[in-house]
Amino acid sequence: MAKRLVSAGDYEQLLSKYDTWLFDCDGVLWQGDRLIDGVPQVLDLLRSRNKKIFFVTNNATKSRKNYKTKFDKLGIEAQVDEVFGSAYAAAVYISSIMKLPKEKKVYVIGMKGLEEELEEEGISHLGGTDPADNTLNEFHLKNFTPDPEVGAVLCGLDTSVNYTKLSKAFTYLRRNKDCAFLATNIDSTYPSAEGLLPGAGSISAPLQCALGRSPISIGKPAETMLDCIRAKYRFDPERTIMVGDRLNTDIEFGKRGSLATLLVLTGITHESEVVGPNASATVPDYFTDSLGDLRAAIP
Amino acid sequence: MAKRLVSAGDYEQLLSKYDTWLFDCDGVLWQGDRLIDGVPQVLDLLRSRNKKIFFVTNNATKSRKNYKTKFDKLGIEAQVDEVFGSAYAAAVYISSIMKLPKEKKVYVIGMKGLEEELEEEGISHLGGTDPADNTLNEFHLKNFTPDPEVGAVLCGLDTSVNYTKLSKAFTYLRRNKDCAFLATNIDSTYPSAEGLLPGAGSISAPLQCALGRSPISIGKPAETMLDCIRAKYRFDPERTIMVGDRLNTDIEFGKRGSLATLLVLTGITHESEVVGPNASATVPDYFTDSLGDLRAAIP
Repeated sequence: MAKRLVSAGDYEQLLSKYDTWLFDCDGVLWQGDRLIDGVPQVLDLLRSRNKKIFFVTNNATKSRKNYKTKFDKLGIEAQVDEVFGSAYAAAVYISSIMKLPKEKKVYVIGMKGLEEELEEEGISHLGGTDPADNTLNEFHLKNFTPDPEVGAVLCGLDTSVNYTKLSKAFTYLRRNKDCAFLATNIDSTYPSAEGLLPGAGSISAPLQCALGRSPISIGKPAETMLDCIRAKYRFDPERTIMVGDRLNTDIEFGKRGSLATLLVLTGITHESEVVGPNASATVPDYFTDSLGDLRAAIP
Repeated sequence: MAKRLVSAGDYEQLLSKYDTWLFDCDGVLWQGDRLIDGVPQVLDLLRSRNKKIFFVTNNATKSRKNYKTKFDKLGIEAQVDEVFGSAYAAAVYISSIMKLPKEKKVYVIGMKGLEEELEEEGISHLGGTDPADNTLNEFHLKNFTPDPEVGAVLCGLDTSVNYTKLSKAFTYLRRNKDCAFLATNIDSTYPSAEGLLPGAGSISAPLQCALGRSPISIGKPAETMLDCIRAKYRFDPERTIMVGDRLNTDIEFGKRGSLATLLVLTGITHESEVVGPNASATVPDYFTDSLGDLRAAIP
């Protein structure tokens, strides 16, 4: 059963039990463009106690550098190498886990941040923000010459998704059984600053429908994201805690990785999903209203 | 077990058993823009024997009038009121079956032909081909004032689908539980003249993912399409045959309506799906290579 944290003692206990803290961002640190009260103080507290901090986010529209800019703007101290986004994780997956040969290319349905992470890993890509593919003009197969070097299709949230990109991706995947079908994440919705919108799962859904098969998803709750962190840093799962606002991504991710889990109620999950007769099958070890509550442990 | 038709006697028997003939179009009468050999002669034969003919198609990008133009161009005799497309069926469903009040509106993800059928039935609509919604500019909820009169979202194949349309449709459906979620059809793929592309099912799939619920689908194999024909004409199901090229839409549709079924192999289905160890669970009563084969019954 999930334990509600209330007292200064509860928060202090959490601090002493866990050395590595993984944070989801949207709904935990901020809501859209609004910083959640007390977050900088809590992160400062963790750093003052020598905790290792990572920011683990499914949002693949931003590169780690874009994230760093957002942290800076909101006044949150963070380093680029503390940020693990699903765009970066997808690039690491392609280069280090599926080991796509260097001459091969990735067809992208996604945004600038995703392309930047692929480039940082030395992965050639097409589609994405290419103006030729960002069009509402009618798509004709006869005008399309598939690139024989495309070895994977990668879908992330793309607010410029269109029938040309979907048709090209579909053609690559349908004509070549060896072409990998990847998604940065399959979140059904995306919490924009102004409210919920269709998420990255909605971008790969048309291909899933047309092809009759599902993508390999890289982001939370898949363990690929944890493998990616593990590839760069050593941490003891028993002394690591995942902090998030979504049961089916953040908390499930922590559980699959045998980490402790803390849910905050500043995002998408309501308390009734955590305790009581309508609680979800996946519940966290701990929950609290807001990450800011940990300020109670500040001396 | 499906019976393969081969002899003139087989085709003659079919002609004498069935008075009403329902035809799918793409893959049966034509392939893209190419007329299938012998089709006009076979339709002439049926008309000369006083058979009632209907063209029943899931393609919702064209209105019945657009279809009439296509028939004329290919040299196939047809009347507008013989054509039952899923665009028309969707309009009939909204006006006559769900009885959407006249002051209410439909938010459309779809093309001109779908809008035309809604207009013919006196249904107000927005979205669709409206230039304001046919954009790849970033969508912001703060700039969107939902129309309180929207009582349904209707999705058909839309080659100008984009994140603005998806976000508006999602918002209508998410904020108003009474807003109906409709799809003209949910074909996973669309057989363009040049090859397969994502179908209408791929257009509603993002909403299905984001909302966690499925649309009511109007087109084949749903019986709504048959209800629509039934609303306009009387026919005896026992003396009616559905001719199509897809097992999961055309043949399934005929079976649900207790009609006889004839599969032709000029479209998407291979013979190995009809007979033998890998046959599908849904098989037709009869199958033949091409609709043109019925010319064998011409005296």
